[in-house]
This record gives sequence, structure tokens and C-alpha cells, in this order.
Amino acid sequence: MVADVAGLVAAITPSDDGAAGAARERLDRLAKPPGSLGRLEDLSVRLAAIAGACPPPVPRTPTLLVAAGDHGVHARGVTRWPQELSAAIAGLVADGRATAATLARQVGADVVVLDVGLASARPDGVQDARVRDGTRDLSARPAMTPDEAEQGIRVGVEAASTAVDDGADLLVLGEVGIANTTPSAALIAAFTGHAAAEVTGPGAANDTETIRRKIGVVEQSLARHGDTRDPLRTLASLGGLEHAALVGMILAAAVTRTPVVLDGVTTVAAALVATHLAPDSSDYLIAGHLSGEPGATVGLHKLGLKAILNLDLRLGEGTGALLAVPTVQSAARVLHDVALLDEF
Amino acid sequence: MVADVAGLVAAITPSDDGAAGAARERLDRLAKPPGSLGRLEDLSVRLAAIAGACPPPVPRTPTLLVAAGDHGVHARGVTRWPQELSAAIAGLVADGRATAATLARQVGADVVVLDVGLASARPDGVQDARVRDGTRDLSARPAMTPDEAEQGIRVGVEAASTAVDDGADLLVLGEVGIANTTPSAALIAAFTGHAAAEVTGPGAANDTETIRRKIGVVEQSLARHGDTRDPLRTLASLGGLEHAALVGMILAAAVTRTPVVLDGVTTVAAALVATHLAPDSSDYLIAGHLSGEPGATVGLHKLGLKAILNLDLRLGEGTGALLAVPTVQSAARVLHDVALLDEF
Repeated sequence: MVADVAGLVAAITPSDDGAAGAARERLDRLAKPPGSLGRLEDLSVRLAAIAGACPPPVPRTPTLLVAAGDHGVHARGVTRWPQELSAAIAGLVADGRATAATLARQVGADVVVLDVGLASARPDGVQDARVRDGTRDLSARPAMTPDEAEQGIRVGVEAASTAVDDGADLLVLGEVGIANTTPSAALIAAFTGHAAAEVTGPGAANDTETIRRKIGVVEQSLARHGDTRDPLRTLASLGGLEHAALVGMILAAAVTRTPVVLDGVTTVAAALVATHLAPDSSDYLIAGHLSGEPGATVGLHKLGLKAILNLDLRLGEGTGALLAVPTVQSAARVLHDVALLDEF
Repeated sequence: MVADVAGLVAAITPSDDGAAGAARERLDRLAKPPGSLGRLEDLSVRLAAIAGACPPPVPRTPTLLVAAGDHGVHARGVTRWPQELSAAIAGLVADGRATAATLARQVGADVVVLDVGLASARPDGVQDARVRDGTRDLSARPAMTPDEAEQGIRVGVEAASTAVDDGADLLVLGEVGIANTTPSAALIAAFTGHAAAEVTGPGAANDTETIRRKIGVVEQSLARHGDTRDPLRTLASLGGLEHAALVGMILAAAVTRTPVVLDGVTTVAAALVATHLAPDSSDYLIAGHLSGEPGATVGLHKLGLKAILNLDLRLGEGTGALLAVPTVQSAARVLHDVALLDEF
């Protein structure tokens, strides 16, 4: 896998229109009323386009990639949870006791947890890919240097590429990072032009007071840096290291033509960065679920994606993306097994 | 399993509030922000209440029960599909080539297909439980006699009970019956008090003209029989034999305390009949998906249920219910595997 972001972006091409057309045509020939599988058919078409084949392979080896990081903005009181919880939760995912680990077992997904920027000691089982000990306070200064952001992206590229080399045929994105709904809101506001108040939500069960403070912090960060002409610089200025790694995972998914399932608002924010760097990378995205965070709705709309599930989840870790995996598998499978109208 | 409907109804009791409370308490003690799994938590609680245990068993042996029937109202031009298609599709489900059969394989579900009232020759693999060759035209006269409806219910009871005896721990409802969205709309209108136009939809890709005709037919049937004081008589008057069998499956699920997943509008109509016969049977219901048919939205609201998936499916056969099975399994599993806050 190419190591620099520009090279990676240059290697990304659109998914295959021909395979998409073949999938649409086959769906209309299946022994069912045309269109009666609704949005499952859109998903079938997308999987065919990504694979460049109709029928596309049924994903059998999903891999959950979890990027973990901490945030200087935590000091601004944007959450009631202690920063040390990020490392603790990353450890729980790695040792199989977090919610995402449970759901990964249920769908047969491998799990990789990356410390791309935690601030506390790294628990056992979490891979060391730390770029720095948390980011700087994005409300006061750039959270990362462009070089740090690019290092974060490379961590994600490396992890996703390794997973694909190891047989992953469906990448499932997750993240851990106390306070990360604040940088997510800032990125979504910057890339969609929405006001801070429209994209900033409660995160993990915050109170009204905290939300108000969060909105103020996002407004400050946007006043400092609302320009998105250089997406990498915007990522560095407003994002977190887990956002950077998720961007890398999405770019690597597009380069390797592997479908990649988004989770909540943090993965949606990363997808906005990735698609501003490489517009064709949007062809490889699947929206697993609609998070309760308002920024997720705004961001998915901008990405032109509709979520598979809407269960009011707001946990992160990849939980919503994992729940969507069986539907993705089913969408591929209908193009294989279902009888054609002219066969009977 | 008791053979008459009154005996069955008398055997149905509410699900277990104590286990529900224990599940809620456990969910709040898991290593995640309280409530952050959204509606998945409601599903976890429901599964605990049904099992009378926290954690509830993770369903491992789902069984798809498909009831197939034909409808005298077909002669009124309420669909553009030929009646013979019902038997053909039932055969495709039974021999593994229909969409529902594909999705059943994907989630590891057994499949049982019952001819409870087809009008054409029964294909191989479809079980003979035929009460009569299709129903009468419900716009002109009762579609069934009360005795025929009760026979249909018994078919469903027998099928569900046998499945549970054979190890099914999650019942998944499906149906096949060309024209059956018309009796479904009539039942939903009768049991919710909504006007025909509010609950009658296009079914399998009908044109505006056909929908108008359908609404007229539903209005005629309601003018003839809109009374729901005797739910069995309403079922007989307005429903189909597959509705009757689905009612029986729901009642048997409640008696055996087995969770049962609803599919589209026809299963929702059957659930309204079942819960009017036995109000406590609603405790055992799970809404798999939200069908595009307007009656499904109205009916689920009346049942107090929110669907797991909303993918604009309008195929039936159990397809939407099957897609929801992995989410049901995950909802049970989180109560088993996830670490407690006080453990770490």
C-alpha cells in the first residue's frame, strides 16, 4: 500500500458502473416483484459495483477496526466522563468484554484495536500505533499538525490493508475516544456548512449545560478554522487521531475495493474528510446505522447515504456498524441464490 | 397444545415483569453509558421478559413459518398478479429458491411452508394443511365461516408448537398469498378504526387505478362487517386462511413463551387479531421491519411496536422478519457477554 496520502488518493477510482447495472438488471429478473426488496436492492447494487462483479462475493470475513484516541478539548468540560475511560474501553474491546466485542462475536467479525492517540497507558491487546498522547485543544489551536494527521491516516491505511491482506472482505469501522463527539461535530460543521448548534449533540448522555458548552467550543474552533479547501489541514485543525486513522481505513478500503461500514457520528465525520480528499471513496461506503447524534444525520445526508439501522444507538465502538453486517451479507446473497423469473 | 382457541387464549399470560426489571437493571450496570444501546435495550428487556430469565437465552434455532393461502377477492381485480403465483412462490420458498429461503439460509433458520388455503395444486415440499381452496370474496360475503377460521388458527398452532417441540427458540412469521394485502388492509381498518384509504397500499407494485379499486373493495367489506367485538368472526369475515394460521402461530408462541418476529402488513394484521383475542399475546411480539404498506405503520402503532428495520421492503414471505433475526440474537447476547461497570 502506498504510504503517502496523495499517492493513495490518486489510486482511488470509482466503483464499477457495469457491475452495478448488471446487478440492477438481475434484481429485476429475480422471482419477486421488481423493487420489492427496497433499499436492500440498493445495497446489493453497491456491493456489486464495489466488487466489480455480479453477483458480488458474500462477505464472510468481516473485520472490526477500532481506532482509539484522546482529545485536548476534554479539558474544556465537553463531557462528564474521565479521559482515562478511553484506554479502559479500548482494553475492554480488545479483551472481548465491551459491547462491540460481543456484537463482533455474534456476527463472526475479527477485532483489531489501535491506539492511534490515547493519552493514558495502553492496555493489553491494544496495538501500539500511537502518534502522540492525545490531541491539543482544538478550540484554542490546531489539534494536530498536518504531519501528525497524516501519520494518523497512515496508521489507518496500514491497519486496513493488513486486514484485507489477512482475508477481510468487509471492513467495519469503530472508534473509542472520550470527548470525540466534539471534534466530530466540528468536522461535520466545517464540511457541511451547518451551524455548530445543528450538528452538536449530547454524545454519551451529557446534560443540557454540557451540550451548550460543547456548542460554544465547536463555534470557537470553527471561527479559528472553518476553511475546508485543504481537507487534510481541516482534519489536523479540528479532528482527532482516531478520525485520522478512520480516514486512512476508508481510503484503503477504496484502494482495495473493499466495502466499508460506517458506525456513528465519528466515523461519519471521518467519511466527510475522506470523500473531500478522494471523492470516489464515497462509492465504497455503507452506512451501518443512524446515530442519535444530529451530526450523523447531517453528515450522512451530505454523503448521500441512508443508514441500514435506526435503533437510537449512541455508543460507538462500532456497535451500530456490526449490527448491520448480516444485512450487508444478505444483500450480496440475494444476487446468488434467488431463482430467476424465467427459470420457473 | 390445546386444540380450541378459547382454551389457548386462556393459557396465555403476560411475560415476566421481574425478568424485565432485572434486564433493565443489568443494562444500566454494563460498561457503557446508560441507555446508549437505544432500542436494542428495549429488545433485550423484552427477550428477558419472554424467557422469564435474565439474561435470556440467545436464540440459536430460528424457524421461519410461512402460511400460504389464496383469496376469493382476487376476482375483483385488486392485484395484477395471477392467483396461481401463490402456489408457485410457496413452492419456491419450500425448495430454497425464493428470497425468504435465501435469507433463511443466511441467518441459519429452518423453513416450514404450510398450504393452509391455496387454490392451486400444492407444490412439492409444501405441507398439506389446506382448510379450503382459497377464501370467498370478502367484499361480498364472509371470506370464511368461523369454523374455517378456527381450523386455520389450529393449523398455525400445530405448526408453531411442532417447531418449538423440535427446538425452535425464535419463531419468524412469513406468508404467501396473491391479493392478501387487501384482506390485511380490511382487518387493520376494522381493528384500528382507520379509514380504508389510510391503510390500503400498493401491495406488490400495483398501479394507482388498482389501489383505488382496492380501497373500494376494502370499504365494501367494512360496510358489510366492521364490527370487532368478536375477533374470530371479524377474522372469518375479512381475513384469509394465512391470516388465521398466523394468528395461531402467535397464540402458540405466547403459550410456549417463545419470541415471535412479525414481517410485513399481513403478519401485522394477524397480530391485531391475535391481540384482540388474547391481549397478553402482544408481550411476545417483535416487529422485524416496517413494510412500505401504510397499514403496517398503522397496525404497528396500534400494537405499540417499533420495527427493527426500515428498508422499504414490500415482498413478504418473511423477508423483513428474517433480516431482523441477527439483531434479536445480538439483543439477547449483550446481556450475557458485556462486562459490568463494577468489574473494571
